[in-house]
Amino acid sequence: MSKPYVVGIDIGGTNTVFGIVDARGHVVAADSVKTKKHVDFDDYINDLHEGLSRLIKANDAEDQIQGIGIGAPNANYYTGEIINPPNLPWGPIIPLAEKVSKAFGGIPVAITNDANAAAVGEMTYGAARGMKDFIMITLGTGVGSGIVINGQLVYGSDGFAGELGHVIMKRNNGRVCGCGRTGCLEAYCSATGVARTAREFLEIRNEPSLLRNLDIEDITSKDVYDAAMAGDRLAKDIFTFTGTILGEAFADMVAFSSPQAIVLFGGLAKSGELLLKPLKETFEKSVMPVFAGKTKILISELKESDAAVLGASALGWEARYRYEAPRAEKIDEVAE
Amino acid sequence: MSKPYVVGIDIGGTNTVFGIVDARGHVVAADSVKTKKHVDFDDYINDLHEGLSRLIKANDAEDQIQGIGIGAPNANYYTGEIINPPNLPWGPIIPLAEKVSKAFGGIPVAITNDANAAAVGEMTYGAARGMKDFIMITLGTGVGSGIVINGQLVYGSDGFAGELGHVIMKRNNGRVCGCGRTGCLEAYCSATGVARTAREFLEIRNEPSLLRNLDIEDITSKDVYDAAMAGDRLAKDIFTFTGTILGEAFADMVAFSSPQAIVLFGGLAKSGELLLKPLKETFEKSVMPVFAGKTKILISELKESDAAVLGASALGWEARYRYEAPRAEKIDEVAE
Repeated sequence: MSKPYVVGIDIGGTNTVFGIVDARGHVVAADSVKTKKHVDFDDYINDLHEGLSRLIKANDAEDQIQGIGIGAPNANYYTGEIINPPNLPWGPIIPLAEKVSKAFGGIPVAITNDANAAAVGEMTYGAARGMKDFIMITLGTGVGSGIVINGQLVYGSDGFAGELGHVIMKRNNGRVCGCGRTGCLEAYCSATGVARTAREFLEIRNEPSLLRNLDIEDITSKDVYDAAMAGDRLAKDIFTFTGTILGEAFADMVAFSSPQAIVLFGGLAKSGELLLKPLKETFEKSVMPVFAGKTKILISELKESDAAVLGASALGWEARYRYEAPRAEKIDEVAE
Repeated sequence: MSKPYVVGIDIGGTNTVFGIVDARGHVVAADSVKTKKHVDFDDYINDLHEGLSRLIKANDAEDQIQGIGIGAPNANYYTGEIINPPNLPWGPIIPLAEKVSKAFGGIPVAITNDANAAAVGEMTYGAARGMKDFIMITLGTGVGSGIVINGQLVYGSDGFAGELGHVIMKRNNGRVCGCGRTGCLEAYCSATGVARTAREFLEIRNEPSLLRNLDIEDITSKDVYDAAMAGDRLAKDIFTFTGTILGEAFADMVAFSSPQAIVLFGGLAKSGELLLKPLKETFEKSVMPVFAGKTKILISELKESDAAVLGASALGWEARYRYEAPRAEKIDEVAE
């Protein structure tokens, strides 16, 4: 039998990256199409179909694709739909699994949100290999999470479980969050949150800082990182502030599911000890005594460029959604 | 074949209640022994064995017991041990499953903590029948929880998951909690927490209240309930305060596992609208928009006297721990 493959697709607001992945987690080949430029969803699907078909053909893999796994913001594993995505233009409900399965002649398709896909990738190929209980926290523009319990992703009753970026960390005078509420973890510990902290600290504190050389409205978490690495006290304090809140949040997460590890992924996770030192110190100080010393705080072992595609592809092996062409359509196809 | 039964045992600090339960969840017969009076664990096991054997014999069920399920504070499902129980005198590590299985000739035994047992009871026979995703919150002397995801109890990596009474609700100037930290949900929303709130309110507020007729140190949550039912403003405010914190906590729990329902159990859960109204109002106001209107807040449908035994007994059907007598001991038994 020829070698089996799966396809992983990572749909971001700007680009859609896809790859052919073998059973050992090697990305055999990858390519991408622009997400943003397609105002019409069917145009986007056509473009994706064309690009992916070309890649499959170029790798002589036409008969070897077992399934397609897709990671996308607000994707619902149960329904196969994307619901109210903030950064995609195709309407409130997008029947993603159906359209992709249909485009590829009924191949099984599974979709989930990007943080869940990253968790599956980490469990299958990364820092959480062999773990049955862990939590993936993605520190990007927002804060996302994928929760694994008993070796299974937690989808909850509606497919939307695992919104740990939106537990409340400040119940009074909390920052406004993109979700419409105030005080969410994401408002403090995302890349955007770090930039907001920088603006706050620069306003309420008087000490000199390298960050004062920048236009305050344009400061990014990367600027804060660079300043901290250059020894800037205020920039270091911003990371301490961020790590402290994450450590407190993690202590509550452990009270819920007592995971073996919490794995950090995404841009901010690469800040090293600047973030990890205050995070771990606060976590160990905050966690309930019965859990002390049990939960590891780990950094993702997957290359960021690969992780999303790998994680999504891992879902492909067990994908069950399969588009069934109506009878008339099938006859048409035969007639062609 | 004769009718199969299981035994459910609920170990409390004062009493140990046990019952014979049939496959439909009827408690066929029940009895109890004192927990407290046994300083020695083996004496306690002997007494329990004697009492339970008598009950089994009186019901002609000697050959029909399929397994024994036990709910006990700090019981670990994985190891079969009770670890550091605050209200039991038998040492830091108590090999409960082994001792009970041994006493009953190697019958399968499963143990879990009391809140988990209540969750299994509710799922099998109560308000959570047919649900695969729900959270049980027990509002008693403390606040306990049993979390069900995908139809399974969440035990976590170490068997101690589900300590939702110990998520932090006040990060600054929080009340000291029995766990050694400050600001835990339990410090506010347990029966003890309600009594603490009463003492605080009576000290910082000046208005008249029926509660001022009582010795402030002896006030219980029941006193607060009675005063509130008699129309006492301050007592009603205590329930509003308590329900508000629960509602905020539940919103965070939903962000984790998106359950179909949160089921309330225990003394305080019987406070009716006094507690439920502020709880539900705050919950709906606090929950992330994507989850709005999805999660039901329910009251346990099990009689408190039955629930613990029923829940524990449900574990008995799938109990796997089985004491294997060493060979020499087996020969001795035959020799007897």
